[in-house]
Amino acid sequence: MPHHPRTPTIGPGHFGRRSAGERITLRDVQNGRMTGSDRPSALDPAIAARLKRGADGLVPAIAQQYDTGEVLMLGWMDDEALHRTLTTGRCTYWSRSRREYWVKGDTSGHTQQVKSVALDCDGDTVLVKVDQVGAACHTGDRTCFDADVLPLGQ
Amino acid sequence: MPHHPRTPTIGPGHFGRRSAGERITLRDVQNGRMTGSDRPSALDPAIAARLKRGADGLVPAIAQQYDTGEVLMLGWMDDEALHRTLTTGRCTYWSRSRREYWVKGDTSGHTQQVKSVALDCDGDTVLVKVDQVGAACHTGDRTCFDADVLPLGQ
Repeated sequence: MPHHPRTPTIGPGHFGRRSAGERITLRDVQNGRMTGSDRPSALDPAIAARLKRGADGLVPAIAQQYDTGEVLMLGWMDDEALHRTLTTGRCTYWSRSRREYWVKGDTSGHTQQVKSVALDCDGDTVLVKVDQVGAACHTGDRTCFDADVLPLGQ
Repeated sequence: MPHHPRTPTIGPGHFGRRSAGERITLRDVQNGRMTGSDRPSALDPAIAARLKRGADGLVPAIAQQYDTGEVLMLGWMDDEALHRTLTTGRCTYWSRSRREYWVKGDTSGHTQQVKSVALDCDGDTVLVKVDQVGAACHTGDRTCFDADVLPLGQ
């Protein structure tokens, strides 16, 4: 019988003993439980199992204004960024350039309050419907797609 | 003096002799002029110069229904897929699994007529506003994000 029944030890067979719907705990994260990237995550394993990540452990995440339908920006999430987005109410990305978590609006004040989150049919893209405060784009534009419309034609 | 003044030869300095806004021709493609991927493309070099591609030479492309604002799907484009999307009126992706160009709807009939195309502020994402015929998703759902809405909360 384990000393701490609520604190499973990490070892061979550990992952196999968990049910698909079981959530991992902060202790699991502290113990270094790994998911799709080289960073630990508390993301629900049932969701993590459906994620199809790129070679860098990330999936693209589309942020859309929930009421107007504007596509605001595209960021990248690893398992833990998705977990934080689902559980904190604040859209959180993984910054590929800075290699750190990035809570949208922490610096600019232009926060994204999470309204809903969906995976696509292949599990390789996230759509986050948000309420965007102010400009989504670092240039000051409302969306990141406002400034460079390409010409159509031959 | 070249034999065919309108048919520049490919060689050292060739790229440097082109102005930023000059379009390359079908002959350039036939001659194997390369862009961001290992596939030749006739994409306007002024656009190609703004594209920031992933390690696989691709950028994510978001397809959005132009009038309702629905986010329909996310596909991937290389330079030539973007070129074909801009010039044919039919949204065209690069299929990562089949490793071939994929004109949306060629098999299913569920075509995407291109209404507008924009690059984002970093040049690493494409937003295509389309008129989607029927279901965008191969499952028969209208969008690829209809079936797997994730629970929010702690």
